[in-house]
Amino acid sequence: MHDWQQYVLTLGQAARNASRQLAALDGAAKTRALQFIAGRIRQDAAAILQANARDIAAAAAAGLAPALIERLRLNLQRINCMADGVEQIAGQADPLGRIIEGYVRPNGLRIQKVRVPLGVVCFFYESRPNVTSDAAALCLKSGNAIILRGGKEAINSNQAIAAIIAGGLTEAGIDPAAVQLIEHTDRAIVPYLLKLDSYIDLVIPRGGQSLIRAVVKESTIPVLKHYAGNCHLYVDTATNTIEDKVRAICLNAKTSYPGGAVCNAAEKILFHKDAAGRLLARVCADLAAAGVEIRGDQRTRELYPQARPAVDADWDTEYLALIIAIKIVDSLEEAIEHINTHGSHHTDAILSTSAPAIDAFVKAVDSASVMVNTSTRFADGGEYGLGAEIGISTDKMHARGPMGAADLTTYKWVVTGDGQVR
Amino acid sequence: MHDWQQYVLTLGQAARNASRQLAALDGAAKTRALQFIAGRIRQDAAAILQANARDIAAAAAAGLAPALIERLRLNLQRINCMADGVEQIAGQADPLGRIIEGYVRPNGLRIQKVRVPLGVVCFFYESRPNVTSDAAALCLKSGNAIILRGGKEAINSNQAIAAIIAGGLTEAGIDPAAVQLIEHTDRAIVPYLLKLDSYIDLVIPRGGQSLIRAVVKESTIPVLKHYAGNCHLYVDTATNTIEDKVRAICLNAKTSYPGGAVCNAAEKILFHKDAAGRLLARVCADLAAAGVEIRGDQRTRELYPQARPAVDADWDTEYLALIIAIKIVDSLEEAIEHINTHGSHHTDAILSTSAPAIDAFVKAVDSASVMVNTSTRFADGGEYGLGAEIGISTDKMHARGPMGAADLTTYKWVVTGDGQVR
Repeated sequence: MHDWQQYVLTLGQAARNASRQLAALDGAAKTRALQFIAGRIRQDAAAILQANARDIAAAAAAGLAPALIERLRLNLQRINCMADGVEQIAGQADPLGRIIEGYVRPNGLRIQKVRVPLGVVCFFYESRPNVTSDAAALCLKSGNAIILRGGKEAINSNQAIAAIIAGGLTEAGIDPAAVQLIEHTDRAIVPYLLKLDSYIDLVIPRGGQSLIRAVVKESTIPVLKHYAGNCHLYVDTATNTIEDKVRAICLNAKTSYPGGAVCNAAEKILFHKDAAGRLLARVCADLAAAGVEIRGDQRTRELYPQARPAVDADWDTEYLALIIAIKIVDSLEEAIEHINTHGSHHTDAILSTSAPAIDAFVKAVDSASVMVNTSTRFADGGEYGLGAEIGISTDKMHARGPMGAADLTTYKWVVTGDGQVR
Repeated sequence: MHDWQQYVLTLGQAARNASRQLAALDGAAKTRALQFIAGRIRQDAAAILQANARDIAAAAAAGLAPALIERLRLNLQRINCMADGVEQIAGQADPLGRIIEGYVRPNGLRIQKVRVPLGVVCFFYESRPNVTSDAAALCLKSGNAIILRGGKEAINSNQAIAAIIAGGLTEAGIDPAAVQLIEHTDRAIVPYLLKLDSYIDLVIPRGGQSLIRAVVKESTIPVLKHYAGNCHLYVDTATNTIEDKVRAICLNAKTSYPGGAVCNAAEKILFHKDAAGRLLARVCADLAAAGVEIRGDQRTRELYPQARPAVDADWDTEYLALIIAIKIVDSLEEAIEHINTHGSHHTDAILSTSAPAIDAFVKAVDSASVMVNTSTRFADGGEYGLGAEIGISTDKMHARGPMGAADLTTYKWVVTGDGQVR
């Protein structure tokens, strides 16, 4: 039996020490380290593939679902994508050292708010091994040490990638404890990690709802939550000139990700009653043709009788599947109220040519991303130009929506005087 | 027996509804409401004083300590200060609606990060009744509804102030549920409040450590922590030309607040060994003359034998009293290490004329406020020019150090397209 308490303490102390070194590095040193890492990922692709093959074999032997095995699988193209991702992050502007605000007070004190790293981030994630290099690169870029806890199915792939990262860090003269992978897959370790509040500054759990809720419950460290999305499209009455776009967006928002199993897929469509007659049946037919199961309220089923009846729970459910629920509303206000009550504050869109309706929707819908005349599927760090993303926050505190390197920073107040007393 | 579950639910729903109205108001409407409130505070000062007299009488009858009764006491001057504070916040720039970032992606999507209110804030505070109007004004300014839970000793004063605020809100056409005071002082209500995560977006507890720790433990809502300060002064070797300033700052940082009972008072002084011979005894004599109890490590006591011996626990203790502990260090690096290990990451200062030493200290000390050649006592929202402050965050997430109205906001991503699909 392991002494997990001692294990996580050692891990945490090493991460904290490395974070002090990282905080003192300039941007060029971190860029160089990231370039070394990207180079080594390409160079050592064979080692990653070998390790990955072991994970795939184990997963197949354990009878994992084919879709999960597919998420786990790496190939040369995916490995090159990992390296590209690291290089892209290397090329981004340094998020640190910026003076967010600076001014001189009447008493002569010079006050500056300066961007600095958070310190140590602990990151939980599931089985896709490419997340390992993305997360490590984002943390390095933002001057943070990271403790990685990946899915147990990917442990061999993750160890291979972590070894490559450690090599790149060492080559760059950086303490390899800046990126530490937890090599034990025992769940018993997790509660100890989540109490390490003097060594870890932030926990980011990426994965299913139950994992995130368990982390929130257990953790004495701040957690950036990434609950999934019950995303809405609202089809306004002012859509008669953009009907083709409405149809294309509805279809895309539900079906563009395989199986609809992604947090920014649309799970609900609300039609204004005056748009429903023109559009509802055609949108439903498009979706049905793409294999989507349609559930509808009473009025929807009058226009599209093939829809299954929606029950109350449907409005609050994130399907993560090729299912969508459709409702007819009497007004823009009813749509806003429905979204704010039943939505998950992740991403919601209005489709309309009416500027006042768009303005009211954008102001009143209390979601991390509010979209106008486009697909909810764009709610993504890459699509927003952040490079890779560490997650999509459904919190309102600190960072909201897609989070890039800059969201892994905080600030310090630097106050410079010349002997002032109060 | 009260049904607290139902009570807090009603409170939370009313706050959420009011917050939707607040989010839609423009800056001028909120400024006008704040001006009405300030006017009514001045006009109805007599009602506040009457209510306050009841609190004072009850406190005296209950045998409260004179210092606590003093904190509770209002007079015309203090009431005018409350009104001044509200007017000052009214006059600040609107923190909302600003476009933090805006750009167009290659696919034509227009992406904007827009500053918006958090929603509903729940604020716990102790017995000073002037905090009621400060907190309400900061939340209104930032478009948030607030639920106030003040100390039970101030309940009559707080009710009088809350009634005045409600009058001002109503006069301005704003739902008075934007500012709700919890009129029950029963502690049983608190756990219910802290589970209201669908109606409250942020909890800010201001008060003793034990209150804050209890709130963190119980709350399913994000908490902005305001742990107290174990603040340090580091007297560098390069201080021979600024000895008078060093002495004045050391004295001020410890003693300028009555009884030293404030989170930004210095609790420790670290002397570089090469500065100690010149300065330590004189600094100690200044402090002793002001009634400060001095505790020192072995080397300190060689230079100032009147010091009591410091024990290990001293280095981690916040005294909130006229006590200070002094230690001699061999290097700047040792000072930094000591502060990062034993400090509370609140406010720490270097006194030095050496630019490299200052630079190293500012970079490496992991505190919300890092001061150079000035007193830690300046770590304060008013002194930083934020107007009133809702608290001094010792968190790294979201807001760090003194928090003003702008720190009670978040952002939303507004993404505008023309039919783009992914």
